[in-house]
Formats: sequence, structure tokens, C-alpha cells
Amino acid sequence: MNNLDIVIDESCRIVDETLDKLIPSAETEPQRLHEAIRWSLFAGGKRFRPVLLFATGQSFGAPREKLLRIAAAVEMVHTYSLIHDDLPSMDNDDLRRGRETCHKKFGEATAILAGDVLETLAFSAVAEDGTLSADLRIRLVAEIARAAGTPYGMVAGQQLDLEAEGKNISIDALNNIHSLKTGSLIAACGRAGALIGGASEAEVKMVEDFSRELGLLFQITDDILDITQTTASLGKTAGKDISARKATYPSHHGIVETEKLAGEVHLRAIEFLDPLDRPTDLLREIASFVLSRTS
Amino acid sequence: MNNLDIVIDESCRIVDETLDKLIPSAETEPQRLHEAIRWSLFAGGKRFRPVLLFATGQSFGAPREKLLRIAAAVEMVHTYSLIHDDLPSMDNDDLRRGRETCHKKFGEATAILAGDVLETLAFSAVAEDGTLSADLRIRLVAEIARAAGTPYGMVAGQQLDLEAEGKNISIDALNNIHSLKTGSLIAACGRAGALIGGASEAEVKMVEDFSRELGLLFQITDDILDITQTTASLGKTAGKDISARKATYPSHHGIVETEKLAGEVHLRAIEFLDPLDRPTDLLREIASFVLSRTS
Repeated sequence: MNNLDIVIDESCRIVDETLDKLIPSAETEPQRLHEAIRWSLFAGGKRFRPVLLFATGQSFGAPREKLLRIAAAVEMVHTYSLIHDDLPSMDNDDLRRGRETCHKKFGEATAILAGDVLETLAFSAVAEDGTLSADLRIRLVAEIARAAGTPYGMVAGQQLDLEAEGKNISIDALNNIHSLKTGSLIAACGRAGALIGGASEAEVKMVEDFSRELGLLFQITDDILDITQTTASLGKTAGKDISARKATYPSHHGIVETEKLAGEVHLRAIEFLDPLDRPTDLLREIASFVLSRTS
Repeated sequence: MNNLDIVIDESCRIVDETLDKLIPSAETEPQRLHEAIRWSLFAGGKRFRPVLLFATGQSFGAPREKLLRIAAAVEMVHTYSLIHDDLPSMDNDDLRRGRETCHKKFGEATAILAGDVLETLAFSAVAEDGTLSADLRIRLVAEIARAAGTPYGMVAGQQLDLEAEGKNISIDALNNIHSLKTGSLIAACGRAGALIGGASEAEVKMVEDFSRELGLLFQITDDILDITQTTASLGKTAGKDISARKATYPSHHGIVETEKLAGEVHLRAIEFLDPLDRPTDLLREIASFVLSRTS
């Protein structure tokens, strides 16, 4: 394994340990609810957001233990959004992270509640993080809520995405959807790592700009993989974007131009790191990884 | 109008003003999402939780402006839970607060997102409340998240309630469901008002005990009204509990015994106020009001 693989493996291990401590056990009542949460949370997700948060925190010298709960909280918010996105009235998907979606396995009502309460548990995790000052905790609650909310965050993007289905939308509208739907929470991970490491506001902004481009790159490569990979290798239904008539980068630009675009966005992302007088090797490795990922 | 009516009217007015400031306008993109939120939030709800929070805060001398955003946040959490409870896969209800439910009006996907993001906006409101110290804000985020979450809060109760449908459950199990589903958030309102007013932990506990019994009383009178009132007077579908084979206090005890139980719970509630060396007239008036309410 190369250095990044080791970092990713280690990040996944410790974020899973932290999540396991923060989520009620499957033996705690109501058991079915906690089983459903754990089903979706421990399904072998890539933990991209925690990895980015750890890497950013590391650039700014934040001790690992101050990053753990915040990384877990962001992963909870991300997983809640996946559970709700997969529902019959939304994307109606049966497969996620290589297994049945939450509502296929536990029914729709429990899946809705599992998503609802993962959001609550995320804010509990931040609020009760004894390693951070009250000022920092409250800043992080505000940052995550803004990134997950509306009009500047994830749910606003999800709403616009739903409304765009089957329509021809402009490339600006597509960029806006992805910036909100996936970019905001990814940018919040970069910001959170920097804030916990005591970065200046100017540094936080640079990391945000890098993370936002990285989020866009992640979305572009997601669109490419949806076309070029199989359902088995993705762990979620491949070819979904075309069958749902979703606006994507390949549907706008074609696959060749989209791959070129990915390269450009990658370069734009890492340029934001240049003025930072901090070790950024790991962040650059992550950007390369996102550019060339195959799943 | 008597004194309590004036207090309730005034509380509703200022919490609505605050909510209007905290929620993006219906002209802000994504418009449909913000329209859906506003449809459910400004439907003439009773604002019972804000009223209780204002009254408790007043007992402890908290200035009104320090209570506003927290009261609005709790009402957002309550409204998100109503939107999701009404969904087809949950209670499948068409009428709420005298108008179409959110999913009937805006479709299921938008209703799910409106509920999701109301929860997010609630935590934003608390985190960004500049009238309170960071310590107090973080305490309130933790309190509200615990009360709305699992295993000690609202979503746990909602899950148990769903699982109990059509089953014969014990009176203890019924009490537990209501204590979680409605009692926890109502108790959190009492606690929040006391905490903002600088109450001691012992005082906070007394107010919590009062509020928890008040929440139980609210549920018992809700069960009675479901049987004795019409859909028009309730603004939601009457007779729903029986048709859904829900476990209720009248289905366990009969209506006469349930009315007697309501009287007992009312007495138990106000006894918790006796040791408090604070003005509690308004809290006592609220308890009488809940006992004798007709809608």
C-alpha cells in the first residue's frame, strides 16, 4: 500500500470506532431504528469526508482526538442524506454501498426516521465534544448546519436536483446544484479541519476553496464512473443517471470533454493550496486520488 | 380575553415574527422548498412549546429576547416531526393544522426535504443566537438534540409508536412511547426556559418534571379530543387513532377513566412547582388550560 492508502485505511478505522461509540447499540431500544442506522452507516463507505477533514486538520497541526467526533458527525450527516436520497419518492434506489438500501431492508418509515435521527445525533456529537472549547463547538454546529441546510447547503441542492430531473438545464445550473448538494458539506470538512487546527480566517478560506473544487472533482468523477463502471464495482446502481434523465457533466460535454474538465478542476483545486505555508502533501495526494479513482 | 389568552396570542405573534426572520423567504431559491416549509410552519399551530418556553423563562426572569430564537428552534423541530409523521409511509394523513399536509400540497420528496432542513435550520438558529453565551448555546444544542433524538427522545418514541400500531401494548409501554415522542421535547422547553433564566440544576429538574407531566397531560387530552371532537374543530383528521388501531389512553381505560387520569396528571404536574421559590402563576394557568382545552 502507498502512503495515502494507509492514511485512508487508518482514517476509516478510527472514524468507524468513533461512530460505533456515538450511535446507540443495536441492542438498545428501539432496536430496529438503531439496526437501520448501523446498516447504512457501517456499509463500507469511502469515508471521503472524514479523510479530508483529518488531512486538513493534520496540515494545521490539530491533534487527532480533536477531529474524531467532528469527522464522525459529518459522516452521519452524509449518511442521513444518502438514506433519504434513496427513498422511493426521491431517487428510488435499491442498492447502496454494496448492499440493500435502508428502506429496502427496514421499510420506508424506519428509513425516514433513521435519516432524521442521524442528523440529530450528528449535532449531539458536536455539541458534546469535550475536547473542543464551547466557542469552537458552536462555530462547528453553525458551519455544518449551514453546509447541510438551505439556501446555501446540501438540502437546497437536493431540491434543485429533483426539480432538474428530465429537464435541460444549463451548465451553470448544474454547477450550482453540485456545489450545493455535495460541494458545501465537503467544503465544510476542509473548513472544520482548518478551524480545529487554529487556522486564520484567510487560511480557512483557502482550504475551503480547495475543498470546494475537490468536491466538484468528486462529482465529475462520480458522473464518469456512473457510465464507465459496473454496478458491482460501484456498490450502487450504475447507469442510473441516464435512466433517470439526470443532468450530468457527461450528458452536457460528452465523456472525453468531461475527463478533460476533471483534469482542469484538479489543477484549479491544488492551486488553492500553493499560498498555504503548511504541509499540504496529503491534501495533494487526496486530490490526485479523486482524479484517478475507479470506484 | 383572560390573561393567558393574551399571553398566548402575544407568544404566537413574536414566535411567528422570529420564524419569519429565520426561514429563507418564499422568493429565495429553491422556492418550492421554502414555500413548503412556510406552508407547514405558518399554518396556525398552537405554539404550545414556545408558550411553555416563554412562560418558564419568565418565571426565572429571562429577558424575552434571549428566549425568541430558542422557542423558534423548538417549534421548527416540532414542525419537522409533524411533516414527516404525516407522510404516506408513516401516519398517511391529509390534513394538519386545518390545511393540506405538506406532502399532499408539495409532493412527498419536497415534504421529506422540508422536514430534513427544518431540523437543520433549528440548530442553525440556536448556534447563531448572538444573545446567548457560547456555553449556553452549546448546552441548548445538546439538550434539544437529546430530546429530539434517540434513545431518549422524539424519534425513538415515533419508532416505538409505529411498531405498536395494531398491537396490544401495556400501559407502561404506552407511557414510554408518549414520554419519548412528545414528552421529551416539551420537557426540553421547560429546561431551556429555566437554563436561559439562569436557574440552578435543581430548579431545572423541577421544571423538567412539571413539563414532562404537562406533556403527558397534553397527550392524554389529545387522545380524548381525537374521540370527542370533529375534524373541523381539530384542524386534523378526528377519529384517526381508532381507524389506525393506535394504542391510546381511552382505548386502554375508556373515556371516563381517561378524563379522571387527566385530572390526576394535572395535579401531579403542578405539585412539582410547589417547592419553586419563583412566580409560577403562568405555568399553573398553562396546566389548567391543557387540562380543559377543546382543540
